Amino acid sequence: MSKEKKLVEEITSMETDFARWYTDIVLKAELVDYTSVKGCLVIRPAGYAIWENMKNEIDRRFKETGIQNCYLPMFIPESLLQKEADHVEGFAPEVAWVTHGGLEELDERLCVRPTSETLFCDYYSKVVKSYRDLPQLLNQWCSVVRWEKTTRPFLRSREFLWQEGHTVHASAKEAHDRTVQMLEVYADFFEKDLAIPVIRGIKTDKEKFAGAEATYTIEALMHDGKALQSGTSHYFGDGFAKAFDVTFTDKDNQIKPVFETSFGMTTRIIGAVIMVHGDNSGLKLPPHIAPIQVNIIPVAAHKEGVLDAANALKNRLVAAGVRVKLDDSEKSPGFKFAESEMRGIPLRIEIGPKDIENNQCVFVRRDNGEKIFVSLENVESEAKECLENIQTNMYETALAHREAHTYEARTMEEFKDIADNKPGFIKAMWCGDRACEDKIKEEAGATSRCMPEAQEQLSDVCVCCGKKATKMVYWGKAY
Amino acid sequence: MSKEKKLVEEITSMETDFARWYTDIVLKAELVDYTSVKGCLVIRPAGYAIWENMKNEIDRRFKETGIQNCYLPMFIPESLLQKEADHVEGFAPEVAWVTHGGLEELDERLCVRPTSETLFCDYYSKVVKSYRDLPQLLNQWCSVVRWEKTTRPFLRSREFLWQEGHTVHASAKEAHDRTVQMLEVYADFFEKDLAIPVIRGIKTDKEKFAGAEATYTIEALMHDGKALQSGTSHYFGDGFAKAFDVTFTDKDNQIKPVFETSFGMTTRIIGAVIMVHGDNSGLKLPPHIAPIQVNIIPVAAHKEGVLDAANALKNRLVAAGVRVKLDDSEKSPGFKFAESEMRGIPLRIEIGPKDIENNQCVFVRRDNGEKIFVSLENVESEAKECLENIQTNMYETALAHREAHTYEARTMEEFKDIADNKPGFIKAMWCGDRACEDKIKEEAGATSRCMPEAQEQLSDVCVCCGKKATKMVYWGKAY
Repeated sequence: MSKEKKLVEEITSMETDFARWYTDIVLKAELVDYTSVKGCLVIRPAGYAIWENMKNEIDRRFKETGIQNCYLPMFIPESLLQKEADHVEGFAPEVAWVTHGGLEELDERLCVRPTSETLFCDYYSKVVKSYRDLPQLLNQWCSVVRWEKTTRPFLRSREFLWQEGHTVHASAKEAHDRTVQMLEVYADFFEKDLAIPVIRGIKTDKEKFAGAEATYTIEALMHDGKALQSGTSHYFGDGFAKAFDVTFTDKDNQIKPVFETSFGMTTRIIGAVIMVHGDNSGLKLPPHIAPIQVNIIPVAAHKEGVLDAANALKNRLVAAGVRVKLDDSEKSPGFKFAESEMRGIPLRIEIGPKDIENNQCVFVRRDNGEKIFVSLENVESEAKECLENIQTNMYETALAHREAHTYEARTMEEFKDIADNKPGFIKAMWCGDRACEDKIKEEAGATSRCMPEAQEQLSDVCVCCGKKATKMVYWGKAY
Repeated sequence: MSKEKKLVEEITSMETDFARWYTDIVLKAELVDYTSVKGCLVIRPAGYAIWENMKNEIDRRFKETGIQNCYLPMFIPESLLQKEADHVEGFAPEVAWVTHGGLEELDERLCVRPTSETLFCDYYSKVVKSYRDLPQLLNQWCSVVRWEKTTRPFLRSREFLWQEGHTVHASAKEAHDRTVQMLEVYADFFEKDLAIPVIRGIKTDKEKFAGAEATYTIEALMHDGKALQSGTSHYFGDGFAKAFDVTFTDKDNQIKPVFETSFGMTTRIIGAVIMVHGDNSGLKLPPHIAPIQVNIIPVAAHKEGVLDAANALKNRLVAAGVRVKLDDSEKSPGFKFAESEMRGIPLRIEIGPKDIENNQCVFVRRDNGEKIFVSLENVESEAKECLENIQTNMYETALAHREAHTYEARTMEEFKDIADNKPGFIKAMWCGDRACEDKIKEEAGATSRCMPEAQEQLSDVCVCCGKKATKMVYWGKAY
């Protein structure tokens, strides 16, 4: 029992200190580790396998919409970065600069890409000539660098992994539709595969991406009531096209600029999974993206027939397409249970001598702890159904949590009271004025998360200044 | 006809100028394009899709041997790079240096990884404590940077994509076995999936990896008779372990250094596929890694029923798991044929009014141009069988070419004559002396490619100095 205790003991409870709980989990579940490179982490196999599954699900959805993958250089010459004024203003202060190649100083500094709008525009300016070349629907999976001062595993680090999609179109409408379509792809992935409900909406001008005309976002609520921006899709109009001279000859023989979009999702969504689903026993992975969906733990494994039965069970589940591990190590069952919980494996199956006698095994669900005796007869279909139930229940639990932590404010007094005492989303009307947005941040510590698709008329006036309201906004403290 | 002519016309024939033929193909088949970043390329969708298929095949094989993926930082602090003397000497002259982060100068320069032995050792020194933690079998897919002076698409560029596997073991034997095992994984992938025969062997000390005790390699022969080092697997002994203090407590309670390996394969293997299989009509992709395996081209597509039949055919092949494209664009059939050849699609299927009448279609093989009338009855199995035949034939053709261009030399005169007049591999005996290796390079322009597994005793004496020979070596001019 001492080892089991140790495994659990070392996690700070989330009620005591949510930030420490989070860090304990990412380290104890062996998702990441610190390195000798300041602000950069190792993503360990257990963490990377989650990312691989996320990638596969996102990539499949992308390809279904006609997107193709490619790879552009990791370096951007300083002159290229500077071509679009808003963009360079947003990114130049936080990029890493390469100044020497081999033993020589470079003629021109290169930054390590913080994002690749500039390179994609440079590329499109070469390959797009006619309306027949449009649309171009490209994406790349890569790492990017932003020289952050403070970092946290997955949520903010100097280097992170992501995908960045960049498309160009013949018309503003088509580009705008694509922007919205990709936000919906993200939302669908979050809700179906990560079991995390999201608010779909548009960023205010203050919060939008450097150089974009409009930034669409999905926002998720973490267990501690803080928001996490989880995926963004940007509409650029023809601003970048004009700066980079990306033009095409249209059907009417006129030369016109293209309309552009970009959209990205990063390894920070692993942080979202941890902070939405995890508990004081560790990680809880949604079955759709769990590298191991079922952990078979033999009980009294030394007794005759137990390991054989466990192995037979494993082979049956593998053949049925379930991702299974059989833990036949020498650790005690209790330790294995605690470890399985720490690592967030959705379903644990115990099998011992008595179970074999009764032609059964025991399912233990990670999401709610439920114990179910299951006949070995149809264990494949039972396991698959149980995993889908876990997936659904995790989504519903997260949705209920978000609904219980979403508040409405009609006055600044109400707003500040909620912000101070009730962690969560705050819905409130806004006049559209930057001054009010700044004031809300200053006085209540909350930023605008988004102007949701699903607008509600909570009142006619801005929660801050009392003038005519134009939008309902989700506000919150955010990662 | 003018358009078809144009597409083909623009390729230099390989007999005229092999280097230009190669460059023409990578550009015309839209595999890569140049960028504003000197020495770095865009890998375009048609090129990246090939890499994705290669990745999947390699990654699957890796995982079957127990390897897991992870991700380490792209930056290496200068002090970390310098810990292993041979390694830093090999790489320091060709790395890119980051000196500024945001607006500030860094305390210590960071290089962009040229390879990650140092980072993996740093990581393993933290996580490996006991023999129970061994072996560690990790791999990462990423990009690396080497500041090359001259570059060529895929073959040599400042940034390239690769995988790098890094393992640590409790014993020298286990590490050595792993080194050989991974070489065999590479060889199997090359021969089965890329249809390229390889020579498996060991590098001489002169040609081995910086810091390695032994470098194993697979060497392939290109169509022009030059060799391409196509994948390497390194055995490090405990050199790095001692430099980085990667130690473990063994079963006997003694603290010991681990034994290490690394192995890598890069996007240059796309160059190998082009230069082994391509011809003057363009690329020839082996079916196993071709993003599109079958290109259906309707003939007289405007006639009633043709497009419907082509679509029905496509759906049947897709359902059978074949990667199919239906080219229903407005280009002429002749242009489509030429384009399909340029892009290296293994099998073209033509279907027109007469074929529909006869319940048939026409297969045209890219590998040998053969035309086959195939009943629509069992077109799925016929297509799959045909693709496998193409795969096999491509391998056999490449093998025959290599055998026809492998020579033996017993004297320096013979050696120089072959090197001057007969492009290909030269098998010759060697005394093991670096001086002879240098002299052969100077006088015949050939480098040692490898000391093959399959040794032959061509003579008793070194081809260069006449002293006692210790090894038969494959020599050649190389990319």
